[in-house]
Amino acid sequence: MISSFSLLAGRGTRGKGVDNKKMKNPNRPVIAIDIGGTKIMTALFDAAGKLIGRDVFPTLAANGFEDVIERIAQNVQGLLQRNSLEPAQVGAITIAAAGGIDTGRGVVVTPSPHLPDWKEVPLAAMFKSRFGVDTYVLNDASAAALGEHRYGIGRGVKHLVLLTLGTGIGGGIIIDGELYLGAAGGAGELGHMTIEAHGPRCGCGNTGCLEMLVSGSAIERNTIEHLHNGEASTLVDKVKTGNNIVSVPDIVAAARSGDKLAQDVMARAAFYLGVGFVNIINIFNPELIVYGGGMAELGDILVGPGKKMALEIPFSLNARAVRIVQAQLGNEAGIYGAAAFGRDMHLRRTR
Amino acid sequence: MISSFSLLAGRGTRGKGVDNKKMKNPNRPVIAIDIGGTKIMTALFDAAGKLIGRDVFPTLAANGFEDVIERIAQNVQGLLQRNSLEPAQVGAITIAAAGGIDTGRGVVVTPSPHLPDWKEVPLAAMFKSRFGVDTYVLNDASAAALGEHRYGIGRGVKHLVLLTLGTGIGGGIIIDGELYLGAAGGAGELGHMTIEAHGPRCGCGNTGCLEMLVSGSAIERNTIEHLHNGEASTLVDKVKTGNNIVSVPDIVAAARSGDKLAQDVMARAAFYLGVGFVNIINIFNPELIVYGGGMAELGDILVGPGKKMALEIPFSLNARAVRIVQAQLGNEAGIYGAAAFGRDMHLRRTR
Repeated sequence: MISSFSLLAGRGTRGKGVDNKKMKNPNRPVIAIDIGGTKIMTALFDAAGKLIGRDVFPTLAANGFEDVIERIAQNVQGLLQRNSLEPAQVGAITIAAAGGIDTGRGVVVTPSPHLPDWKEVPLAAMFKSRFGVDTYVLNDASAAALGEHRYGIGRGVKHLVLLTLGTGIGGGIIIDGELYLGAAGGAGELGHMTIEAHGPRCGCGNTGCLEMLVSGSAIERNTIEHLHNGEASTLVDKVKTGNNIVSVPDIVAAARSGDKLAQDVMARAAFYLGVGFVNIINIFNPELIVYGGGMAELGDILVGPGKKMALEIPFSLNARAVRIVQAQLGNEAGIYGAAAFGRDMHLRRTR
Repeated sequence: MISSFSLLAGRGTRGKGVDNKKMKNPNRPVIAIDIGGTKIMTALFDAAGKLIGRDVFPTLAANGFEDVIERIAQNVQGLLQRNSLEPAQVGAITIAAAGGIDTGRGVVVTPSPHLPDWKEVPLAAMFKSRFGVDTYVLNDASAAALGEHRYGIGRGVKHLVLLTLGTGIGGGIIIDGELYLGAAGGAGELGHMTIEAHGPRCGCGNTGCLEMLVSGSAIERNTIEHLHNGEASTLVDKVKTGNNIVSVPDIVAAARSGDKLAQDVMARAAFYLGVGFVNIINIFNPELIVYGGGMAELGDILVGPGKKMALEIPFSLNARAVRIVQAQLGNEAGIYGAAAFGRDMHLRRTR
């Protein structure tokens, strides 16, 4: 456990019985943290919600969660000092992380593959005791959805669903302009929606999850399976010489150069992405589907065909209502969403 | 089109600038209507939200939608007269119906199989012009979800998803204690969530929809396919003598008597129902899943095994949060939900 020095922050005046218009602006600067598998991003937002400082440093997950958390805490202290702020002036700290997050308790319950020892880690309590600041923990894709809604492509939209297309597949849901977290913070696990019940088994216990069919890992695994079946491809050498490793960029390049195997693999992923979009449209009737993540750039070969399918198949009523668009904030979506969540929670507490 | 005699209802006082506590009770009696494929139910609820009169009569969908609507309107007039009410005293009329409903415009956009000519029918405008009462149109499963939330098993629950298990599969979603309708009223089409992408093609244009694998129609179709393959079963005679018709009760009875084919068919449906539950749990992290409809009674052979699977597979965080329970209001869930929706909308208008 990290060494704790507790700074009990004074709470803002609650404004009870005070005329609304005369009430002091309850907004405060907030800290946002996004813990990824390889990188951590921390950021300071001012009372107006503007990003005023940002740091990026390696996660080094192999060092164990206590080391990771200690380095984050030290970085946050530095970020505050560089901006002449005391922890007591900060309204909230919000941490976005992968894995199963219990937002109500502020705990990382089940680890993600990239943070394997993060099991029942009481992140919120650890930061609260260290800085004396109310701390919240969010699933990273949920944070990205809120980020795009408040600062990105989803501004002004009532109902929005975000899908992150990367090594894995994450999801976040905005209902009526608010982040929807479900009973405990576990809502939006769209990557673990079964779309092919007799498909490959997933680490989550489920079969045929969207993530097992569309993610970067799935595309790589599927390519290697085909190559091991002896199918002809310009990628054969990669498997022979490259320790059985073929990357998504390799596969995409091969497909664009006319490699049949690579084209089939990408077409299959695009088909399943289309199924995912259709399900989201039929279930949520959203105004907007936002796709982000490392593979969001693959418009011609992955997202484009999936999107075309999704706008043709679902109920006409729902298909007519939806636009499917690329995210705007790139890998900063998480800190923007974390900051927005912290601001909201702080306002709710001081109202 | 129905002959229209317009009674322009006086709106309730808006209470602008009036002290909340002194304001006249804005609640009014409401009319609720549920249009099913074979039966129509109409009901009058008093200002306190209590059911005080109810009628049931056959839909006779084959007569065409204009005839159906005319008979509903006449019944509503009778219901009001029997209770000494003028239309002007009614706060809202809410109609629950199958098919693709645009709640925003109050239009049945796409017909359900049972009401084949209900295409772009402006139900709300027709009733508004006839009775002078604000009229709303809802998907029937959404209405059932709201009914169970306000009057049934879901009282006091924040996040709830309802699944109707009948000839088809419908869905309704309660988020934060409110009915979630999406951009236009099309949210909650859980029966048209693909769970087996290479499964049978559905009339909706999609493949492997939950409805194509779990509904009463799916169970019957699947049984007949097996029988036509020449598999041994006590049901063989049904197909030979009964014009190729095997009903769900026949199949269930055969399965309970040890018929292998019937048991396999039911086990398959239960497996897919389990997949549907898992998806709902992973997507919504709900507190409660409510199942209703004609097949909700099949606890031992359909819902039980599906439920067991659903509580074992999903993310532990989400599985821990959920209870899966049978609906309480039977075939009255729709009118209860329609009444609750009308009351809410009336209160919102007069606030």
